Amino acid sequence: MEKVKNYIENNKERFLNELFEIIRIPSISSEAGHKEDMVRTAEAYKAALLKAGVDKAEVMPTNGNPVVYAEKIIDTVLPTIMVYAHYDVMPVDPVDLWDSSPFEPEVREGKIWARGADDDKGQGFMHVKAFETLVANDKLPVNVKFMIEGEEEIGSVNLGAFCEANKEMLKADIILVSDTGMIAPDIPSITTGLRGLAYWEVEVTGPNRDLHSGLFGGAVANPINVLAKMIAQVTDENNHITIPGFYDDVLEATAEERRLLNLAPFDKEEYKRAIGVEALLGEKGYTTIERAGIRPSFDACGIWGGYTGEGAKTVLPSKAYAKLSSRLVPNQQHEKIAKMFEVYFTSIAPKSVKVKVTTLHGGQAYVCPIDMPAYKAAEKAYQKVYGKQPVPTRSGGSIPIISTFEKVLGIKSILMGFGLEDDAIHSPNENYPLENFYNGIETITWFYQFFKEEYNV
Amino acid sequence: MEKVKNYIENNKERFLNELFEIIRIPSISSEAGHKEDMVRTAEAYKAALLKAGVDKAEVMPTNGNPVVYAEKIIDTVLPTIMVYAHYDVMPVDPVDLWDSSPFEPEVREGKIWARGADDDKGQGFMHVKAFETLVANDKLPVNVKFMIEGEEEIGSVNLGAFCEANKEMLKADIILVSDTGMIAPDIPSITTGLRGLAYWEVEVTGPNRDLHSGLFGGAVANPINVLAKMIAQVTDENNHITIPGFYDDVLEATAEERRLLNLAPFDKEEYKRAIGVEALLGEKGYTTIERAGIRPSFDACGIWGGYTGEGAKTVLPSKAYAKLSSRLVPNQQHEKIAKMFEVYFTSIAPKSVKVKVTTLHGGQAYVCPIDMPAYKAAEKAYQKVYGKQPVPTRSGGSIPIISTFEKVLGIKSILMGFGLEDDAIHSPNENYPLENFYNGIETITWFYQFFKEEYNV
Repeated sequence: MEKVKNYIENNKERFLNELFEIIRIPSISSEAGHKEDMVRTAEAYKAALLKAGVDKAEVMPTNGNPVVYAEKIIDTVLPTIMVYAHYDVMPVDPVDLWDSSPFEPEVREGKIWARGADDDKGQGFMHVKAFETLVANDKLPVNVKFMIEGEEEIGSVNLGAFCEANKEMLKADIILVSDTGMIAPDIPSITTGLRGLAYWEVEVTGPNRDLHSGLFGGAVANPINVLAKMIAQVTDENNHITIPGFYDDVLEATAEERRLLNLAPFDKEEYKRAIGVEALLGEKGYTTIERAGIRPSFDACGIWGGYTGEGAKTVLPSKAYAKLSSRLVPNQQHEKIAKMFEVYFTSIAPKSVKVKVTTLHGGQAYVCPIDMPAYKAAEKAYQKVYGKQPVPTRSGGSIPIISTFEKVLGIKSILMGFGLEDDAIHSPNENYPLENFYNGIETITWFYQFFKEEYNV
Repeated sequence: MEKVKNYIENNKERFLNELFEIIRIPSISSEAGHKEDMVRTAEAYKAALLKAGVDKAEVMPTNGNPVVYAEKIIDTVLPTIMVYAHYDVMPVDPVDLWDSSPFEPEVREGKIWARGADDDKGQGFMHVKAFETLVANDKLPVNVKFMIEGEEEIGSVNLGAFCEANKEMLKADIILVSDTGMIAPDIPSITTGLRGLAYWEVEVTGPNRDLHSGLFGGAVANPINVLAKMIAQVTDENNHITIPGFYDDVLEATAEERRLLNLAPFDKEEYKRAIGVEALLGEKGYTTIERAGIRPSFDACGIWGGYTGEGAKTVLPSKAYAKLSSRLVPNQQHEKIAKMFEVYFTSIAPKSVKVKVTTLHGGQAYVCPIDMPAYKAAEKAYQKVYGKQPVPTRSGGSIPIISTFEKVLGIKSILMGFGLEDDAIHSPNENYPLENFYNGIETITWFYQFFKEEYNV
């Protein structure tokens, strides 16, 4: 494996430049104007995979953005690793908060700065280069498949159907994913749980047109006031969610699981300092780690209505809107929660308004058992590169497709994430340390070796 | 007074033609391109006043559009009526919705159609013609002053200073204003109260940047959720405002006042149908007329924060904003209420967010006592022309300059409005029935007579 390490070292600059080419394509999946960029990015990944040594690669259509599929089958009796990644990225607004242009990647302070630098072009591309490294050095120990989609940031809306339609092609023994984070640059971790998600847009309509707030104010329901009261009502004074039945299916963590979870290094003062708040706020009876990892949440992601320009304009608006979301935990069914919220939110509206609830998005939570071969292989791989055992953690984030893989393909995933909390994914100034990019590539090459060993045990 | 009636009848056509000349000048105060038209309109009013018989008339400069001032002092021992009106008009957009050109007045279906036909050229010019009528027939019983401004539609921004600077010149016993409406063509009414206003912008800051709602959701205060709870908390389940001390200064209407107020014709089903709501919502214990007229309100005029684009973007935003306002009632001091809200709203915020409250705007409520001589005189005047008692009404709207007159000049106003709800002021196809124009002139001449009598009682 010395050859492998040297290969990575000798090709560092090229790896980075190739990543930059992919980052430069503004593949924002939530903005209709980028349709062509999605295809361009998929084609760029296909070319990169072919160059890296796959037997075949295809840009396969879906009802939305295409999926890049590639494979190298060296021996059908050997186990198969399927790499999953996504080539789409989040929007870049507000663009004036970026210190450099989001789609012109730069290296400063030892980090790559760009939209997608971490999530998920930086992390996804590590797999292409890890694979290339193994192939180039005749060290590939297993069969490999790649499935790289373009709709992760909009809920992987077509990937479930793609999996359904291509079950045979997608057969594998483990799905390998780098789309999560590690605790700190020197504390590797493996994400063993992910929260699910339900996401709604709500529209509250009061009068049929904007009214004069002097002539009507106080006598006619104001949709903003009403919406505020409705949102307020979804959580109680202890920040428990009030939707009837919401917690019914929650798989409660055991006392032992909670004890282990709280062993992860966590400095509350540093955490508060980093995000600039004087106090934290969350569900009564749970620690911050628990609130963000194993407990469901209810967050307004956006709100708008009425006059939002400069100065004072008096108006009693006709409509108010919000984007509302819940992170879900294992065993909560997102479809059931989505419906539950719809019924509840409509029921708490006064008769003086009309309420429309649209479910925009949903995904199941996921749990990875720490005794499976892939987990053990990952542990050993991190040990090789970082010199220490990785910590199992629960992420509050959601990768709904991970649950879909399990449901549709019957394959577990192993989440080897190399992102850091400071990477500002989904925010201005997204970045990804070069060290994580290169360590990631090396750790992945080790994972392949150990996975073969563990799998054959 | 038979002579007076005949004079009006015999000069009908000329009165109308003279009004049309003033309407034809497009004096839109909010559009910079009409600066010269403002001066032309002021000069036209000056000429009309001189022709009507004032002793002197002047176009007086302000920091904005000039004020037309005129007077006829017949005897310093007699009481003085000061007429207030405005010669500026609202913009005409969208101009393609007009059935005839907004600045080419036409008579159709017994109505004048033009921008300013009612608000406030039609109503203001009635006073010039009523004055002319009295002078021409040697029937002027009191001293008269005119103050006609050109910035009412942009908040009378310079008239307060004008009053401060000309207190002596503007001395009068009553200010007579026709810039409001009446209940119906056959139901004369006098506006006896106007609500005041306090208006704030609030900013709630949670984390110092937008966060990933999966990684942080549930553990960190979401400023939208918090703002919703804070707005919700400003009114209770009965829609009373919860700000401590908010109602302390409210001049409660007496049972008799409330009884009278509720005599005004009001069809709840028609009201709901017109604004398209299935139910009304307001403060418990008050009727709709009371809620919109004599009770303070709390309305969000605008709200925004987080992701408001298309589709689902998960984010725990850094900031949320709202424009909040309260209509105030007589005796509530807007400065005091503004401060009270600031203290309260800041106090109800959890420690996990920062709150900034900025007061953007304020104005006092106004009340016209129905036992003052001018009110009694107005009652009798309407009785003469309409054959019935006018109904005292409270408008939920605000005309801040009316409170300024009281504060700066120490003079009460009497609001004798002849507009109708159908007049479409501020909208395309503004109109004003000829009947209201001529009845207004006659009613005003009666008011002069009765005012002198009531004043001397």
